[in-house]
Amino acid sequence: MTDIPFLMLDDKNSSAPLYRQIYEVIRRAILSGKLISGTRLPASRVLAKQLSVSRLTVVNAFEQLLAEGYTEGKIGAGTFVASKIPEDLLQISGIEKKDQMADLAKGKVKVSKFAKRLTETSAKVSRFQTTSNPVPFKNGLTAVREFPFGIWEKIAVRVYRQSRYKISGYGEAAGYRPLREAVAAHFAASRGVHCDIEQIFITNGAQQALDLIGRVLLEAGDKIWIEDPCYQEALRVFHAVGAEIIPVAVDEEGFNLEKAEKQDDAAKLVYITPSHQYPTGVTMSLARRLSLLEWARKNDAWIIEDDYNSEFRYAGRPLASLQNLDGCGRVIYVGTFSKTIFPALRLGCLVVPRNLIEIFAAARNLCDCHSPIFEQAVLADFIAEGHFARHLRRMRTLYEKRQNILVEEAEKELKELLKISKATSGMHLIGWLAEGFNEYEVAEKAFENGLNLSPLSSYCVENKLSAGVILGYTGFDEKQIKQGIGKLKQILEKGTPSS
Amino acid sequence: MTDIPFLMLDDKNSSAPLYRQIYEVIRRAILSGKLISGTRLPASRVLAKQLSVSRLTVVNAFEQLLAEGYTEGKIGAGTFVASKIPEDLLQISGIEKKDQMADLAKGKVKVSKFAKRLTETSAKVSRFQTTSNPVPFKNGLTAVREFPFGIWEKIAVRVYRQSRYKISGYGEAAGYRPLREAVAAHFAASRGVHCDIEQIFITNGAQQALDLIGRVLLEAGDKIWIEDPCYQEALRVFHAVGAEIIPVAVDEEGFNLEKAEKQDDAAKLVYITPSHQYPTGVTMSLARRLSLLEWARKNDAWIIEDDYNSEFRYAGRPLASLQNLDGCGRVIYVGTFSKTIFPALRLGCLVVPRNLIEIFAAARNLCDCHSPIFEQAVLADFIAEGHFARHLRRMRTLYEKRQNILVEEAEKELKELLKISKATSGMHLIGWLAEGFNEYEVAEKAFENGLNLSPLSSYCVENKLSAGVILGYTGFDEKQIKQGIGKLKQILEKGTPSS
Repeated sequence: MTDIPFLMLDDKNSSAPLYRQIYEVIRRAILSGKLISGTRLPASRVLAKQLSVSRLTVVNAFEQLLAEGYTEGKIGAGTFVASKIPEDLLQISGIEKKDQMADLAKGKVKVSKFAKRLTETSAKVSRFQTTSNPVPFKNGLTAVREFPFGIWEKIAVRVYRQSRYKISGYGEAAGYRPLREAVAAHFAASRGVHCDIEQIFITNGAQQALDLIGRVLLEAGDKIWIEDPCYQEALRVFHAVGAEIIPVAVDEEGFNLEKAEKQDDAAKLVYITPSHQYPTGVTMSLARRLSLLEWARKNDAWIIEDDYNSEFRYAGRPLASLQNLDGCGRVIYVGTFSKTIFPALRLGCLVVPRNLIEIFAAARNLCDCHSPIFEQAVLADFIAEGHFARHLRRMRTLYEKRQNILVEEAEKELKELLKISKATSGMHLIGWLAEGFNEYEVAEKAFENGLNLSPLSSYCVENKLSAGVILGYTGFDEKQIKQGIGKLKQILEKGTPSS
Repeated sequence: MTDIPFLMLDDKNSSAPLYRQIYEVIRRAILSGKLISGTRLPASRVLAKQLSVSRLTVVNAFEQLLAEGYTEGKIGAGTFVASKIPEDLLQISGIEKKDQMADLAKGKVKVSKFAKRLTETSAKVSRFQTTSNPVPFKNGLTAVREFPFGIWEKIAVRVYRQSRYKISGYGEAAGYRPLREAVAAHFAASRGVHCDIEQIFITNGAQQALDLIGRVLLEAGDKIWIEDPCYQEALRVFHAVGAEIIPVAVDEEGFNLEKAEKQDDAAKLVYITPSHQYPTGVTMSLARRLSLLEWARKNDAWIIEDDYNSEFRYAGRPLASLQNLDGCGRVIYVGTFSKTIFPALRLGCLVVPRNLIEIFAAARNLCDCHSPIFEQAVLADFIAEGHFARHLRRMRTLYEKRQNILVEEAEKELKELLKISKATSGMHLIGWLAEGFNEYEVAEKAFENGLNLSPLSSYCVENKLSAGVILGYTGFDEKQIKQGIGKLKQILEKGTPSS
């Protein structure tokens, strides 16, 4: 029997069970080569005495080593370090070799082309857009304090009690059927979306809807048109797939097909936000919509309609969706509940033409099976019982009020420094900076002072617009908006170009 | 003014508001070309009388048409069908042209290579594996009636009340931090996984973990080794990415590196289930584990360790994970809560080497931002407060009992027709059919009789094994198991090869 003096417990205060500590010490000794193949371990009785622990503790440790193949032999008849462990392999097994990680400089790691393209755009994402700190005037935040959590909670408890066994297994890739029914009814009434239940997919927010579209319909090298300026997260999806992105400058009627065709007429897909262009807020005209549908039909091309915050319209009547006009199955409609319920819910929807139902179901199944069912069931009841429509009405009134406060306060305090015009819909406004201001400098200073403004050009690909910043208002109350404008005033007055 | 006799309400019983019905009739008339550009619509007063509705209703309809660009002019001064709508485009706009969909034969739809590959494997998926009907002996089902929903619900209500504002916004791509901490502690204690919190990603089940790995690490044409037989859903992920799949027959020590290298030595990744090979249940030996780690280090290759149901071990001690031995950052560990909590929760986890943290965060962010936060918070508390460990202990006892019932009942009733041996872990057993039986015929007949058996060879790629079927037992109580065996007996006795 080899003497094994190192066999002492490292840390008497460890929270791990004693047997586990003994196991770990011996295992490390084997892996590090201190105990070589064939070495006989001390008898459990002897070791127990040496370590002042019960014999059962040592037996437990030995059983574990045996089970994992570190040792051989019958307990009682002697335990040996396994002969099958090739010595030259032991050096690589880790535990104490964490510093080997340093060898793996980032560039040396082999990843896919998808991952490489993703890394390219990750570096470009503006930190003003990614920070999750809910300070004014961070865009896209909901009035979370106004959400009827009490009702939501009541429905949740009821769903748990009544449906726990029905909704705890695996479900359909397309989503929980009662939610799809509720969603179909909602989007038919509010957005004129016409479809069968089968065409509706519940997704983990609009982001997953876009990612699914990119994977199912696009190939590396495919040309796609996008609006410029554009929703950057969508752009990243298409870039990651390897699509060749052709930015088309948006004008006062929205996406311009003629301009797009002049730039490159071989696009396979176009990504647009026709109801309320992101971030300019322009509405796409009927004539443009019809032309684009005709183009898609003739060219077997796809139109992605991202209807991201069409629910918030404060004046006039909401325009029906582009999907509503589509008689040829070329429009894929994307909606979200992140802005109407809350973002953490991660629920959105996708309405696909009939001939894509099967492939989207297969793709969704492959990605992650389906969205969690429980919260789908809660949302289904929340919509079906009218709470959703009521909440939307309340938020419309509230958000309009908040927009008015922002516009009035900016007019009063910022005057010529920052001009904000009202919008009839949406969750943000564009603030146009007085001549001479650099929008990135302003955003940077605002960031340092606890504000969040996105430079307008951070949404642009090639388009050059006047200097402006995006101001979200829906997530902030009167006091926060006024304080925010006050801070912004100080920043702009200090940095005024004439000073 | 043109006469427009068709302007009558289609359906007096429609649930849509009257103004909406009028709007819809006129809109359809414009889109179908019945009302051409420049046509003057009747005055709202006249139309109201004609339709026996209030004038305000007609005005509302006209305003909507104006807002959407179908008409022009000032209300009161006359309303005209818009001149800007190009007539030749109108024919394509849908509504009444749904049958155009029939033109789009499936093969004609342009989809990505990913989608095409996906379609190839979709057709191959055995319906015994995809049906969600929880009949004996469907594999992978949990004892859903034994889950402590009462405790879960209490935690849920508390989380809603205490954290609603904190957890309703966007979160980290890697997951809710308190859950990552709880998961790290759990897998360290139960599986020997050693990692920092930063290396842990909460995913939508193991499926999303596998999909993320495929996208980030594999390129079309990359060679990968898989176990044969193998978990088919993982195979589908790698096939969809376009990887060249090299199946390596599993033996009694699990995945065989020597055999694999002889078949093709250029693999970039290997996908294995070392704790409990799926579906054979074999445990990978320590020597094999160490060799594989050495191979990965030398070849800059990746090892995916799918530790899918390692929590259910009924005898002996659980073996530490392969990740535990990895000192070179080549192992990616995949775990799931679908089998330990319930599948509808859609939560799993991924532990990546340090040098992949950033790219996996970017990829997860692109896919769907992050998992829904609320249920992550509930699971975090469920684990941290010890309910998870308690539930696992209870299920281990219960599942062992159920396995015993299945084995004893099969021995007693089926005798030589179907031989089932006990296993020390897992959620299913293999039933070996007597010579002469065709496993697909047996599965088919079982299916017709309200049973669910997966033919063993439906998990095989090239490997030829004796005829067998997979019997899951964890989701069924004593009565169900006994009835299931009774039915199976009838089926096998009728179809016995000697008859």
